[in-house]
Amino acid sequence: MFNLKLRCWITALRGDSNAMDNVSTERLAEESHRQDSANLLIFITLLTLTILTIWLFKHRRFRFLHETGLAMIYGVLVGVILRFGVHVPQNMSDVILGCAVNNSPATLLVNVSGRFYEYTLKGEVGRGKGHQVQDDEMLRKVTFDPEVFFNILLPPIIFHAGYSLKRRHFFRNIGSILAYAFVGTVISCFVIGLIMYGFVSFMKAVGQLGGDFFFTDCLFFGAIVSATDPVTVLAIFNELKVDVDLYALLFGESVLNDAVAIVLSSSIVAYQPAGDNSHSFEAMAMLKSFGVFLGVFSGSFALGVATGFMTFTKLRDFPLLETALFFLMSWSTFLLAEACGFTGVVAVLFCGITQAHYTFNNLSPDSQDRTKQLFELLNFLAENFIFSYMGLTLFSFQSHVFNPLFIFGAFLAVFLGRAANIYPLSFLLNLGRKNKIGSKFQHVMMFAGLRGAMTFALSIRDTATYARQMMFSTTLLIVFFTVWICGGGCAFELLCASPHLPNIQSKRRDTKHESAWPFRIWYNFDHNYLKPLLTHSGPPLTATLPTCCGPLARCLTSPQAYENEGRLFDDDSDSILNDATVSSMYADVTVSTDASGRTVNRSSGTRGLSDDCVDHDLALAEHEVAIRGTRLVLPVDDPVEPPTTVTLPSPPSPPGSEPRRQRL
Amino acid sequence: MFNLKLRCWITALRGDSNAMDNVSTERLAEESHRQDSANLLIFITLLTLTILTIWLFKHRRFRFLHETGLAMIYGVLVGVILRFGVHVPQNMSDVILGCAVNNSPATLLVNVSGRFYEYTLKGEVGRGKGHQVQDDEMLRKVTFDPEVFFNILLPPIIFHAGYSLKRRHFFRNIGSILAYAFVGTVISCFVIGLIMYGFVSFMKAVGQLGGDFFFTDCLFFGAIVSATDPVTVLAIFNELKVDVDLYALLFGESVLNDAVAIVLSSSIVAYQPAGDNSHSFEAMAMLKSFGVFLGVFSGSFALGVATGFMTFTKLRDFPLLETALFFLMSWSTFLLAEACGFTGVVAVLFCGITQAHYTFNNLSPDSQDRTKQLFELLNFLAENFIFSYMGLTLFSFQSHVFNPLFIFGAFLAVFLGRAANIYPLSFLLNLGRKNKIGSKFQHVMMFAGLRGAMTFALSIRDTATYARQMMFSTTLLIVFFTVWICGGGCAFELLCASPHLPNIQSKRRDTKHESAWPFRIWYNFDHNYLKPLLTHSGPPLTATLPTCCGPLARCLTSPQAYENEGRLFDDDSDSILNDATVSSMYADVTVSTDASGRTVNRSSGTRGLSDDCVDHDLALAEHEVAIRGTRLVLPVDDPVEPPTTVTLPSPPSPPGSEPRRQRL
Repeated sequence: MFNLKLRCWITALRGDSNAMDNVSTERLAEESHRQDSANLLIFITLLTLTILTIWLFKHRRFRFLHETGLAMIYGVLVGVILRFGVHVPQNMSDVILGCAVNNSPATLLVNVSGRFYEYTLKGEVGRGKGHQVQDDEMLRKVTFDPEVFFNILLPPIIFHAGYSLKRRHFFRNIGSILAYAFVGTVISCFVIGLIMYGFVSFMKAVGQLGGDFFFTDCLFFGAIVSATDPVTVLAIFNELKVDVDLYALLFGESVLNDAVAIVLSSSIVAYQPAGDNSHSFEAMAMLKSFGVFLGVFSGSFALGVATGFMTFTKLRDFPLLETALFFLMSWSTFLLAEACGFTGVVAVLFCGITQAHYTFNNLSPDSQDRTKQLFELLNFLAENFIFSYMGLTLFSFQSHVFNPLFIFGAFLAVFLGRAANIYPLSFLLNLGRKNKIGSKFQHVMMFAGLRGAMTFALSIRDTATYARQMMFSTTLLIVFFTVWICGGGCAFELLCASPHLPNIQSKRRDTKHESAWPFRIWYNFDHNYLKPLLTHSGPPLTATLPTCCGPLARCLTSPQAYENEGRLFDDDSDSILNDATVSSMYADVTVSTDASGRTVNRSSGTRGLSDDCVDHDLALAEHEVAIRGTRLVLPVDDPVEPPTTVTLPSPPSPPGSEPRRQRL
Repeated sequence: MFNLKLRCWITALRGDSNAMDNVSTERLAEESHRQDSANLLIFITLLTLTILTIWLFKHRRFRFLHETGLAMIYGVLVGVILRFGVHVPQNMSDVILGCAVNNSPATLLVNVSGRFYEYTLKGEVGRGKGHQVQDDEMLRKVTFDPEVFFNILLPPIIFHAGYSLKRRHFFRNIGSILAYAFVGTVISCFVIGLIMYGFVSFMKAVGQLGGDFFFTDCLFFGAIVSATDPVTVLAIFNELKVDVDLYALLFGESVLNDAVAIVLSSSIVAYQPAGDNSHSFEAMAMLKSFGVFLGVFSGSFALGVATGFMTFTKLRDFPLLETALFFLMSWSTFLLAEACGFTGVVAVLFCGITQAHYTFNNLSPDSQDRTKQLFELLNFLAENFIFSYMGLTLFSFQSHVFNPLFIFGAFLAVFLGRAANIYPLSFLLNLGRKNKIGSKFQHVMMFAGLRGAMTFALSIRDTATYARQMMFSTTLLIVFFTVWICGGGCAFELLCASPHLPNIQSKRRDTKHESAWPFRIWYNFDHNYLKPLLTHSGPPLTATLPTCCGPLARCLTSPQAYENEGRLFDDDSDSILNDATVSSMYADVTVSTDASGRTVNRSSGTRGLSDDCVDHDLALAEHEVAIRGTRLVLPVDDPVEPPTTVTLPSPPSPPGSEPRRQRL
C-alpha cells in the first residue's frame, strides 16, 4: 500500500555517536525492561499502600472515603512527585524518526543493517511540540496504552459486576432497570450533549475555544459521562444495609448503562466518518449510527449469552479444571466479541449474567467458591489499579486542556442530565409500579450516579484532538468530584438519614412484582425448559415436556437433575417469590458483631459471614442473605424458630477497642 | 547519543498509495486489535481443548500422557494448520523502514506530519532474507515476544513450585538436593558443553556447520538443557504415590536447578561480551562470570527471602485484602529483582519458599485456600499455555535449523550429562547418607529429568544467530522427546514396577535425617526465634529468649502467638521429626475411592481430598498427608486408632462404571 520513497532523517537528541555503537541491542532492551519493571513497581506499591490503608479504614470503621477514592489520592500524590520531584532525562535509546509519512502504521519493520526488527505502535505521544513532548522520560513511561483498560482491566470488572448481580431483585425490577439503563442513558447523553453544545457555541463566540468542537463531540462527551459506576456508592450501601430494591435498581442501572454508554459512544463515532469535515446533520448517517448501535449491542448481547449457555461444565470432580475452563470461556467471550467487531465488554457483561444464572448451578461447590473468589480478586485489583492510575494521570498526562468555562458547563450538564434521567423516568415508572419509587429514593439515585472506571477508560481511549483532550481533562475532574464528594456525601447522608428514612426502608412486607405477566411467562419458560436443559438442576425435562417428547426429554436431561429435583426450589427461589413464600421462608435472626467487624450469624448451612463477605458474596450465596431494612434476615430450615442472638468468641482485638453491638 | 544523519527509505511492499490515505490510523489500529484478539483466541481455544481432553483422560484414568504433553500435541496440530493450511498475506499496514542504522533502539518515535507516534521494539523477526520473513502474516502474528515467557508466564509457575515445595521432606533432604541442584547442574552443563564442542568441531571439519558456533555457545546450550522440569513426572509420581524421599529429592532438585540453570546461562553470556570476537579462554572473564553467578544468585535469593519475610500480614479479618496483598507482594518481588538487575524468576522461587514457610502461617484459613487455589490456577494456565505454544513453534517458527548431526550429539550429550550428574553424585552422597539412595531410585531420577518450560523459555529468548537458532530447534526436539517418551515411559515403568520396587518403597520406618547437626541448629533457631518473630504462631519470644530480653520479647511477639502456642507442634512438624514422632503421629488410614476418582479419607480436620487435591494441595495442607509407599497415611489425633476404611456415598457416576476400590 505504501509506495512512498521518502527521505527520513534520524534526529539526534544528544551527540556522541560512538558510545552508541558499543552498547548492544540486548543491553538496551535489558535497560528498557529494567525501567519497565521499576515503573510497574510504582503501581504495585500504590496498590499495596491502598490495601494497607483500606484495611486501616475498615478496621477503624471509617466509611467516608471508599477504597477507590483512596487509590486516587495515592495516585495523585505519586503524580505530583513524578511531575515536580523527579526528572528523568530523555532515554538515550530513543530515536526520533522524522518522516513525512501520511499515516502511522500499526507495525513498523525496521531494517537495521540486514536484520529486521518489528516495532508495534504504542500510541501517539503528542503532536507538534517535538522536544517538549519528549522532555520527561519518566512521565511518558508511566503512561499506559489506553487499550490496556479495555482489553485487560475493564473486562474483569464488568464480568464481576454481571456475575454478582443480585439476581432475584434484579429480575424483579428488570423493567425499571432497563428503562433507566436504556431510555435514561440516551436521555442523559442527549441532554448533556445539547447543554455542552450551547456552552461550546458560547465559548466559540467569546473566543475561549482553542480548537474545533463539533456537535458530535458534544454528544460523545454526553455518552461517556453517562456511564455511572456501580462501585463506590454500592459498597457503602451494602455496608449500611439499605433497601434491596434500591440496591437492585441502582446496581442494575449502573451495570447496564455502562454497556449502553460504550455502545452509544461508538455509534456516535460511527456517525462522523473520519476525514469527512462537513459535520452537518445527515439522516442517513443518523440511521447508520442507530443501526450500529442496535447491531453492536444485540451482537454483543447474543454472543455473551451464547457463550454463557455453552459453558455447560460437567467437570464437577476436578475443581481446578472447572475453574480454569470457566475462566477461559469468559475470556474467550471477550476475545470472540472483539474479533467479530462487537464490544467485548458488553459481551462479557451478559456472559457473566448468564453464567451466574445457569452455569453457576452446574459448578461444584468448590468451583463456585473458587470462581467467585478469583473474579472478586481480579475485580479488586483492576478497579484499584484504574483509580490509582486515574489519580496519576491528573499530573502525568501531558496534554491537559483545563477550560474553566467548559468545566463549569460540564458539571452543570452532568447534574442536569442525571436529573433528566432519574426524575421523569421515575415518575413514568411509578405510574406502572406497585412498589413506588419514593422521592427520597429518587434523590439517592440522583446523587449515587458516580462516574468511574468506564467513563475514564472511554475518555482516555482517544486524546488526539483538542476536543478530546479537553473532554479528558474535564472527565477526570468529574470523576474526582463525584467519587470524593458525592461518594463521601452519600455515605454521610445515608448514615445520618438511615434511622429516619422511611421511604427507603419501608415496603418490607408489601413488595409486589412489577411487570408481572411477562416476567412470569419468562420465568416459567426458564424454569421448566432452559434450566433443566442447561444445568444439572431443575425439574427433569421428562416432567415438564409433553409426554410425546419423552425420548428427547430423557436424552437432554442430565442424570443429576433427577436427584436434584428437590433442591431446585431453594436454588431458584431468587427468581420468583410471592409474599406467602417470603413470609414463610424467612425467620429473623438478629446479628451481633464483634469489634473487628466479623458478623456472626446462625443458620443451617450458612457460613459465618464477615463484613467483606456481606459486601461481595451476597448476590451469589445460594442461601442468600436478604437485607431488609435494618435487620439481617436469613432463610433457615425451621420457619418457626424464634429470633436468636449469637455471640461468638471474638478474635483478639487491638487494645482499647471493646467488642460492641453493631448499630444496624 | 545518535548523531547520525541517514537517509532512510520506506520500502513499499505493494503499490497503491492512495488507498492508504483514506484509511485512518484508528481503523488500522482497530483492525490490528481485532487480529490480535483472534490470535489470542487460538490459544484460548487450545487451552480449552486441552482441559476438556485432560478431563477425559482423568475420567478414564489414562495416565501415559500428561496434560502438558497433550497441550503440545494440540499446539503441533495448530502449528501444522497455520503453516500449511492458512496463508494470510502480508498485512497492508506494515511498512519496512530500511535504515543503515547500527542499532535497533528500544523505543522509536516516528514523526508523522507533526504528530509523534511511539513504537516499541517487539523483537527481531528475521535477518537478511527480507521478503521471505514477512511472507506469512499469520505465522508472524502468533509469535509472542520471548520476554512474555520470562515476565508473565514463568513467574507464576516457579512461584507455585516454591510455594508448594513439600517442605518437611525438602528440608530433610536439603543437603542432597543442594548437591544435585548446584554441583549436579554445573557438572551437567560442562559435560554437555564439552561433548557438544566435540561434535561442533567435528561438524566444522566435515563442513556441516553453516555458521559460527563457539565454545561459549556450547556451554550456554549445556546450561539451558540442564534445567529439568518438575512438572510432568512429578504429577505421575503423585498419582502413583511413590516414596516421599524420592519425591522430595526430584522435586527439590528440579525446582532449584531451574534457578541454577538460569543464572548459569546469564553468567555464560556475561563471559563473552558482545562485540568481542576473540573467543579464547580468559581467566579474568572466567572470574567475572563466576562473580556474576554468585552476585546474581545471592542477590535474587536475598531479595526473595527478604520480601517473603516482609509479607507479614495482619489482615486476617479481610481475606480479599489479604489475598490481594499476598499476590502483589509476590509480584513486586519479581519486579524488584528485575529492576535491580537480578533474576526475577529466582527471586520469586525463594520468595515462594519463604512465604510457604512463614507467611502462610499468618494467613487466615480462607486466605490460605484462596492463595493456594489462585496460584494453582495461574500455574495450570501458564504451564499449559507454554507447552501448547511450544508445540506451535515447531511449525510456526520461521528460522529453524535442524541439523541431524547436532541433534544426535545433543541427545547423546543430554543423556550423558544427566548420567554424570546423577550417578557420581549419588555415590558420593550415599557415603554420607544414612538413608541410601538406591540404584533403582537413581535410574528413576536419571530418566525423570525431563526438559520443559524453563529450557524452552531460555532457548527462545535469543534466536538471533545461527548457533542460537540451531540450539532452539534442537532444544524443542529434546523437550518433545523427554515429555512424550520419557514422561510416558516413566509412568509406564513406575506403574508396572510399583508392586515390586523394594528400593523405592522401602525405608518406611527407618528414615534418618541426613546432615543432622547443621540442620538441627537451623531448625532450633528458626523454631525459637524466626517463627515467633515473623508469624503469629510459634512459642512466644518471651519463652524462648533469655529473661533479660523480656520487654523486647513482649514487644515483638504477636498477641496471637500466646493462644497458638499449643498449635505450634502441628504447624511445624513438617520441619523436623524423629522416628519416635513419626511412629506415634501417624496412624494408617486405608483410602478407598469411587469411580469418579474422588478419594475419601477420614481424619480429624482434613477435608475429603479429591485426586486433584492430592495432586496439588498435598505439600501445603497443614495436616499434611504423607504418602509412604502404597498407602495414604494421615496424621490423626488419636495415634492408637486402628486403620479404618471409609466409603462415602459415591456421587452420581456415568452408567456402566461401577464404583471400585482403587488399585493403589
